[in-house]
Amino acid sequence: MNFDLITSKDNALFKEVRLLQATGSKGQKARLACGQALLEGIHLVQTWLGDPGLKILFTSEVGLKNSEIAQAVYSHLEICPDTKVYQLDSALWDLLSELVNAPHLAGLLDLPKSSLAPSQSIATLAGDVVILDRVQDAGNVGSILRTAAAAGFTQVLALSGCAHLWSNKVLRAGMGAHRLLDLYEGWSNQQVLSAVTAPLLAATADAKCDLFSLKNDLLHPVAWVMGSEGQGVSEDLLAQAKGISIPIDPRVESLNVSTAAAICLFETVRVRRG
Amino acid sequence: MNFDLITSKDNALFKEVRLLQATGSKGQKARLACGQALLEGIHLVQTWLGDPGLKILFTSEVGLKNSEIAQAVYSHLEICPDTKVYQLDSALWDLLSELVNAPHLAGLLDLPKSSLAPSQSIATLAGDVVILDRVQDAGNVGSILRTAAAAGFTQVLALSGCAHLWSNKVLRAGMGAHRLLDLYEGWSNQQVLSAVTAPLLAATADAKCDLFSLKNDLLHPVAWVMGSEGQGVSEDLLAQAKGISIPIDPRVESLNVSTAAAICLFETVRVRRG
Repeated sequence: MNFDLITSKDNALFKEVRLLQATGSKGQKARLACGQALLEGIHLVQTWLGDPGLKILFTSEVGLKNSEIAQAVYSHLEICPDTKVYQLDSALWDLLSELVNAPHLAGLLDLPKSSLAPSQSIATLAGDVVILDRVQDAGNVGSILRTAAAAGFTQVLALSGCAHLWSNKVLRAGMGAHRLLDLYEGWSNQQVLSAVTAPLLAATADAKCDLFSLKNDLLHPVAWVMGSEGQGVSEDLLAQAKGISIPIDPRVESLNVSTAAAICLFETVRVRRG
Repeated sequence: MNFDLITSKDNALFKEVRLLQATGSKGQKARLACGQALLEGIHLVQTWLGDPGLKILFTSEVGLKNSEIAQAVYSHLEICPDTKVYQLDSALWDLLSELVNAPHLAGLLDLPKSSLAPSQSIATLAGDVVILDRVQDAGNVGSILRTAAAAGFTQVLALSGCAHLWSNKVLRAGMGAHRLLDLYEGWSNQQVLSAVTAPLLAATADAKCDLFSLKNDLLHPVAWVMGSEGQGVSEDLLAQAKGISIPIDPRVESLNVSTAAAICLFETVRVRRG
């Protein structure tokens, strides 16, 4: 099959894709403006194969000679025949690829509505939820998404000030967890307090209540709040939450936030299995 | 006080320091050859203040105007008066510093003997231990060290093929945990099997034994084995270990190794607290 070629870095679509790759708030703005994120590499594209939101694929002549890539492209086309596939010149792949020796496969994915704007329309958000309060390191955010999916916490809510859930780095560290999760972005503290129905449990180093004494509190839906790397959970939320500490050696200042999240979420899993 | 100035990038000591910063096996070789590692930034230097192994400090005119840096330098000199302090030109700091806007403070630390060579002389290694089996990502390794220290697992053993425990990235992710730990590096599987006295528990995705069913097994010293990101625990070790799985949503392929380590180590903490 012949696909459209993109050979110039001045091609409009290629330029758009480059913008989506930008780091920090620049990339986030670009992704929110067009409502799409770039899935880079075969692992992420495979995760969304057959998803109608995956509307455009990028590969190359070299890429299509790789049987895994070719199979991914054609099996997506079979389910979603309207998908546009483009072949990029190798030189453009060099510009595009953040991964060393990355296979020549990428895709443009429509973002879910709940990631595009703070959902004014969501009056209540029931059930378990993980709330990220200005967690800024993309690796930490992606790692927490991967852990949340593994622990069966399918709702994750990122307050304003978090690393964008759809940046390359978060997607990569998430290892495909995004597809299993309902992701809510850009909420204010006030929206959380009015919409989230489960009690807030805030992981904080100096709380008197010990994670391992919680037990029954974890049998019902909970909203775990994980705070920013430097400052922890904001005072606004802390005032409405039960503070929970993980018992650590007093000579250690703190745990990494993604480590703390893993311990809290899997303690919840453990208690619920009885 | 006046300190010796280093103004040229061709200065022998500066060139040595640059070598210690090299990534991958090049940096590891350089660090093992001179038996030293570079502590970059005020947080790491503060962690080792007063440690006689911290024999050289680097700062600058600008750095010494920062009261926190000046206090660190002078309080270390008070306890360890033989410490050499050098002032580097700002241009050299730009070459040296991996951290954006990093404060002008770094130090050269003598590596512990157990990090320098596989310890032929250690016939037995008793008590709890965390064994890293070719964990290659420096961020993961550093994160595991930080978690191990927090969980009170003070012995960490890195098999050949792990990211070097004393690289910049591991030091940074470790957040000072190195100082609280006894670190053993470069061991072979055979050395582990003959010296480690605690039973080996290997975290593996497909093991039948569930972490949360272990309980009594965790009351006595254990050797947690965490495997490489791609391949998990090597077959050699697995054959001698009890495989332990963390229960995760079946749609998720695996947990990140540092996440898995955190869950295993803190489940051990929880069980021991009764």
